[in-house]
Amino acid sequence: MENNSSSRPAIILLSGGLDSITVLALAKQQGFACYALSFDYGQRHNAELDASRRIARHYQVADHKIINLGLSAIGGSALTDARIDVPTSPQAGIPVTYVPARNTIFLAFALGWAEVVKAHDVFIGVNAVDYSGYPDCRPEFIKAFQDMANLGTKAGVEGHKIQIHTPLIALSKAEIIQKGLELGVDYADTVSCYSADIKGRACGVCDACRLRAAGFQNLGVADPTHYRPK
Amino acid sequence: MENNSSSRPAIILLSGGLDSITVLALAKQQGFACYALSFDYGQRHNAELDASRRIARHYQVADHKIINLGLSAIGGSALTDARIDVPTSPQAGIPVTYVPARNTIFLAFALGWAEVVKAHDVFIGVNAVDYSGYPDCRPEFIKAFQDMANLGTKAGVEGHKIQIHTPLIALSKAEIIQKGLELGVDYADTVSCYSADIKGRACGVCDACRLRAAGFQNLGVADPTHYRPK
Repeated sequence: MENNSSSRPAIILLSGGLDSITVLALAKQQGFACYALSFDYGQRHNAELDASRRIARHYQVADHKIINLGLSAIGGSALTDARIDVPTSPQAGIPVTYVPARNTIFLAFALGWAEVVKAHDVFIGVNAVDYSGYPDCRPEFIKAFQDMANLGTKAGVEGHKIQIHTPLIALSKAEIIQKGLELGVDYADTVSCYSADIKGRACGVCDACRLRAAGFQNLGVADPTHYRPK
Repeated sequence: MENNSSSRPAIILLSGGLDSITVLALAKQQGFACYALSFDYGQRHNAELDASRRIARHYQVADHKIINLGLSAIGGSALTDARIDVPTSPQAGIPVTYVPARNTIFLAFALGWAEVVKAHDVFIGVNAVDYSGYPDCRPEFIKAFQDMANLGTKAGVEGHKIQIHTPLIALSKAEIIQKGLELGVDYADTVSCYSADIKGRACGVCDACRLRAAGFQNLGVADPTHYRPK
């Protein structure tokens, strides 16, 4: 586990969940100076922002910004609209927890910050589990975003190639956890649950909880998630 | 000047300036039900948001949202960072008034709202004057954004073609004004100045003011801009 000693800046989208902490650990291992970016978008699971702060501190990132977004003004998702319930069983098609254009919006901000800190690398933890349901997690979307980024930014115009890194894109939840454990990630620190309580304790029944629990189970390692009493 | 009677919804990016009011008037003329979208991004020229409210009311849009963005957290532009002065004479290259990834961010939000109101059309007032300086106003950027939008959204995945309309893209400022006047646009209602005062009165010397004034002058019509006393 060598560090290469470059300290090129990179923007890391950090939700405070299992995937993004693994991505941060990977980028750090690759020697990037990590600029962590989180969003307060009126999501119900605000405990994940506390997790993002703890994680950013733990990994001694170069900077951590939490951008306040008015996504609830737009609504249209169980995560941003209190009138839509978070489902507790699997659903067909694009789930109601899909936040319209969320990754486009998140990556757009990452791009803006990248321009300011002169980073040409952006990391996002999209993966095989996500893109079964969310269109903005698919490899072809990421590729199209990267093409657009290279046309729409000062850096791109000046000939620097902007790269959107998706190191988890081909991995299952169990494989992500395995990689993270190899890197020394402490998953007790992370919050994945769509309905976590104020202490960050998980419900155990939402999509995010079920995928996460299955990941630990498939890997055969102990699940460090803090669940709330039933 | 016929209306076609479709009332398909469209998202219109409405800054409150000369270009975006013209775009709104055009979309309205084409029979779209217009959803106007503005942003409070810590820009110095907040008077433009007041203008956007007046314009939205005047054109009886279906809805008008002003999204609060934390762009000043990112900085990097004379428009969002108080430590960078707004220039009062022309500059070479990409100007310091360029806001990193601004149109990517604005269009990303437009896309999110489009998904919620089931719109497949988004209008933005980028034009030939802008894209001399701003990379995210160029036709090839818009095309790349549209491709990305069709891969990263529920609508795109379900086979609806999302279209980013740029009706001003080939027009000079004078041509835009001419088109707007034909549509009955009242440009006195708009604010373009990067340093407008609280009453929306223009400085007359910033890039935006100079381009606007030259537009009226080239067209040979009276400039209705409210300038503040020198």
